[in-house]
Amino acid sequence: MSDCHFCQKIQSIPTSTSGDLVWTFPNSHLFLGKWQFYHGYCVLVSKAHEKELFFLNDNTRKSFLEELNFSARAIFDAFLPAKMNYELLGNQVPHLHWHLFPRYKDDPQALSPVWLRLDQAEKVPSEHAIATTGKGTSEKTIQMIQAKLKQLGAPRG
Amino acid sequence: MSDCHFCQKIQSIPTSTSGDLVWTFPNSHLFLGKWQFYHGYCVLVSKAHEKELFFLNDNTRKSFLEELNFSARAIFDAFLPAKMNYELLGNQVPHLHWHLFPRYKDDPQALSPVWLRLDQAEKVPSEHAIATTGKGTSEKTIQMIQAKLKQLGAPRG
Repeated sequence: MSDCHFCQKIQSIPTSTSGDLVWTFPNSHLFLGKWQFYHGYCVLVSKAHEKELFFLNDNTRKSFLEELNFSARAIFDAFLPAKMNYELLGNQVPHLHWHLFPRYKDDPQALSPVWLRLDQAEKVPSEHAIATTGKGTSEKTIQMIQAKLKQLGAPRG
Repeated sequence: MSDCHFCQKIQSIPTSTSGDLVWTFPNSHLFLGKWQFYHGYCVLVSKAHEKELFFLNDNTRKSFLEELNFSARAIFDAFLPAKMNYELLGNQVPHLHWHLFPRYKDDPQALSPVWLRLDQAEKVPSEHAIATTGKGTSEKTIQMIQAKLKQLGAPRG
């Protein structure tokens, strides 16, 4: 078994009971993320265990980035945020994954990156509770994103 | 004159003396950024004033994302960081621009997003000085990225 968190997560999809899988694309899986203060926040995880975009072959990278685009648009269409934030970091887990954070006008820190709030959320239980509480159930949130992906004709794989 | 910071920056390229332009692609401009604690940090600014990737037409978006890939690879090849961080936020300036932060092993906060350090840098002058000081002159840093872009056959526009 790989010691990569995302390789393990992908391998466990068939038996998982976590209920966070939104969509499987040809080159990636879209999961609902835990920071649902940003309602609709998802993580798009590459099927390939690679560290950088430019280590993917051209076709895989281009398709993966179109899957990013489908995902971002579906979240945007479902929840109408003010802005989407797209972040590929991998400092802790160097397996390509995009954080897709919808940003809302009523966020008191709307002009800042999410990581200032999330750093506090990792340290302070009351902040953690705020950052992980969304506006609806996970099931409903996932259904709304899936409905938009279907409307957009997003590919499955 | 547009009141968009990046539209103004692009318009002023022909007369600018800031010396931060690294490369002009068909759909974007690559500029050296000010946070040179992350040696080689650049910002890739879309020529089109758009807010989200999915508001670009398909061809423009795909080309813009390939320009992102060329830029990230050139920075990586030039300075050999441990990881690249790719971030499209736009919470303050909603004109498509990618932050490309190379992350180094000797960064005491290597596992964290850059924004924790940069939030401090915006507030504390001594931290600002650290965050904006690179390992070489801007001219040399730009030349090293340009050399890699040429080797990669990056398109010009």
